[in-house]
Amino acid sequence: MTKEQKRYFLGEGEIPTRWYNIQADMVNKAAPMKSPNTGEDITVDELARLISREAACQELNTTDRWIDIPLPVLEMYRYYRSTPLVRAYALEEALGTPAHIYFKNESVSPVGSHKLNSALPQAYYCKQEGATNITTETGAGQWGCALSYASKVFGLECAVYQVKISYEQKPYRRSVMQAFGAQVTPSPSMSTRAGKDILTKYPNHQGSLGTAISEAVELALTTPGCKYSLGSVMSHVSLHQTVIGLEAERQMQMAGEYPDVVIGCFGGGSNFSGIAFPFMRHNILDGKSTRFVAAEPESCPKLTRGKFCYDYGDEAGYTPLMPMFTLGHKFKPANIHAGGLRYHGAGVVVSQLLKDGLMEAVDVSQLSSFEAGLLFAKAEGIVPAPESCHAIAAAIREAERCKLSGSPEVILFCLSGHGLMDMSAYDQYLSGSLTNYTITNESIEQNVSQL
Amino acid sequence: MTKEQKRYFLGEGEIPTRWYNIQADMVNKAAPMKSPNTGEDITVDELARLISREAACQELNTTDRWIDIPLPVLEMYRYYRSTPLVRAYALEEALGTPAHIYFKNESVSPVGSHKLNSALPQAYYCKQEGATNITTETGAGQWGCALSYASKVFGLECAVYQVKISYEQKPYRRSVMQAFGAQVTPSPSMSTRAGKDILTKYPNHQGSLGTAISEAVELALTTPGCKYSLGSVMSHVSLHQTVIGLEAERQMQMAGEYPDVVIGCFGGGSNFSGIAFPFMRHNILDGKSTRFVAAEPESCPKLTRGKFCYDYGDEAGYTPLMPMFTLGHKFKPANIHAGGLRYHGAGVVVSQLLKDGLMEAVDVSQLSSFEAGLLFAKAEGIVPAPESCHAIAAAIREAERCKLSGSPEVILFCLSGHGLMDMSAYDQYLSGSLTNYTITNESIEQNVSQL
Repeated sequence: MTKEQKRYFLGEGEIPTRWYNIQADMVNKAAPMKSPNTGEDITVDELARLISREAACQELNTTDRWIDIPLPVLEMYRYYRSTPLVRAYALEEALGTPAHIYFKNESVSPVGSHKLNSALPQAYYCKQEGATNITTETGAGQWGCALSYASKVFGLECAVYQVKISYEQKPYRRSVMQAFGAQVTPSPSMSTRAGKDILTKYPNHQGSLGTAISEAVELALTTPGCKYSLGSVMSHVSLHQTVIGLEAERQMQMAGEYPDVVIGCFGGGSNFSGIAFPFMRHNILDGKSTRFVAAEPESCPKLTRGKFCYDYGDEAGYTPLMPMFTLGHKFKPANIHAGGLRYHGAGVVVSQLLKDGLMEAVDVSQLSSFEAGLLFAKAEGIVPAPESCHAIAAAIREAERCKLSGSPEVILFCLSGHGLMDMSAYDQYLSGSLTNYTITNESIEQNVSQL
Repeated sequence: MTKEQKRYFLGEGEIPTRWYNIQADMVNKAAPMKSPNTGEDITVDELARLISREAACQELNTTDRWIDIPLPVLEMYRYYRSTPLVRAYALEEALGTPAHIYFKNESVSPVGSHKLNSALPQAYYCKQEGATNITTETGAGQWGCALSYASKVFGLECAVYQVKISYEQKPYRRSVMQAFGAQVTPSPSMSTRAGKDILTKYPNHQGSLGTAISEAVELALTTPGCKYSLGSVMSHVSLHQTVIGLEAERQMQMAGEYPDVVIGCFGGGSNFSGIAFPFMRHNILDGKSTRFVAAEPESCPKLTRGKFCYDYGDEAGYTPLMPMFTLGHKFKPANIHAGGLRYHGAGVVVSQLLKDGLMEAVDVSQLSSFEAGLLFAKAEGIVPAPESCHAIAAAIREAERCKLSGSPEVILFCLSGHGLMDMSAYDQYLSGSLTNYTITNESIEQNVSQL
């Protein structure tokens, strides 16, 4: 029995040359971010002290639907894009579902995840504006690897604060960053005031994205020529990631289908936004009714159980205050292996979209995420990142719903990265030593009540 | 400055549907393999006790230039092929060479290397012929991962003997095999007579491909329904890998170039043969004069310093006797990180081609292989497997020669796999704790004089 086509690629000339800015199309714009210093609405000038001016302009741009991708970034995109859109026939067979399951395989990027899509423009803008150094945080290390390589491409020195638990769980990602020439420090560290403060209070602190952000922000604000760069959460990051969905849109056309459900795992929102926003514009503008599902870990449930309010993006309170779904910036996430999803907040755009019912969120337990990931690996031959396992679990739920209803819906999810550097997590799952982490309403309330 | 196209893909309809069998075109055919039992020329029947009958037929086929790829294998190829042909502009710039450097990126296969190209047909043939189990050896684990996944695809149980030093150096590859459902045993083990014999003699034996082959062969010969499968060395494996070079040939046409030099790293010859043989046929048939360079490790120099004679493919002497360049089947290779290149022999076809001057061989030290690999990683963003670093080192030598001569030659090499599971080796290189291993003429002579 011959299958229809399995993989769809775009020619170099078909790779998108513009990113899609959903802020221009939102009926209800997100409320403004506030300055952590003055409490006033944030300005481009204030943001540009921290990140590149161009990224700051994009962050606050609520009018231009399309933003041109700079040529040197586009040239780098053409090194590894388009990424394949794959029809997951083997997974469909394993599930016995009538659903058509597609995934956008971002794991084939040279650094193994979608993160390079935003690392390249961010490093490029910093270099163009005269920076010599760039600094960031990383959880699982996917973002850190991407920015390390992007810095090498555009000639910047790169310093990465890696969440300590990930630094220890995933030593190979640290090695990759170092192979690209980056300086990597486990966070919390004694190299910043923010790090010292938290280590003084909690000497055995395992780190969190919120803390690592504080350290990187502090380094950028106190070092001449050094800019900060963030791998998720912010709107300009989501903007850059829309290259994923814009490609997928054309590739779905090649397959002659249109998704009924679009799914991404959710930490700060970068891969979810990337795959979802370009399709969401057709819901907003063209009357389509695709569902959009963000899959977050049960142990870090800001979308499904967080509070919508102003909160900081980092533990120390250096970043702007953002109106968003949050578990509180002092929230200490459990040590799940999906390090990229251990973040307390959701960013302003996604939060507004969720509030307005334009998207949904589900939570996935650690054990069911790995169960889904292994099923996928055995079917499709690709070992997914623990983060991506959450998207796969959500996709499998949808496919099983379709099996019950007999409905051949089209499900599209983003395979944000591979898990080849997370094999110790799979080992632990296979040996039965992994657990779930649940979180009580009381502990959530305790954190958010302080906001 | 806009670069020309960087990556070349084939459409699904352009993926080769036949493998190229160089044995049909060789003016001097290789001498016959000999039975380890009778000393007579090996027959298909005898080989088919060990491997699938179809693979045995291919092994001894010296007449058919083209062999059809079975449809179910072709369907699986279409899941991950074509792999990209990439113009390495950034590497060229880093070297300041006028050479045009291309690489065929086999690292984007789901299991991370070219090995899947032969694992799929081998598993398929075994299943078709009624086998229930399959067993093999693996060095670095690339082949073991590939066969584990291929076994899952076609519904076979898979048992892998992994060379002990690699089992310990690269635990993540073991985990990937286990994630695909394979049983993995460090070799030498106490589960076979061959393993027991060697452990009795050398209790701290670190393993070698030759020993692991003995264990897998013994398991296959003593287990009903179990077939053996080899990831390199044999002619049918090289045959399957020609899909690499056949694709590259079409992709080079798309780029409007033809290679002056084709390079592959060399352990048992599978990726080298795969990239080289389809181009070599134009040397044989059409008067082209491309050079073919096999890059082997300085510490395991069978091509550059071995003896051409009949030798076993494994340590215990279970396999047929093969006329080939060898360091002796009792050779104990140094513990270099390029585990896939730690093999004493070269296979019959490549050995004949080298003897006849149709190809060349160079050796690369461990330290210079990692130096080359890091230069490549920083330029192209892909961390290469330690094995592939040898091909890169050889390509860089050629590119530097072109720089001296001012000659814009076209260099093509095979990036056989990524090194994301070999980061501990890069760590050791970066920390200065790696060394070179040289080998004396006396120790080579001592091993081969016993043949």
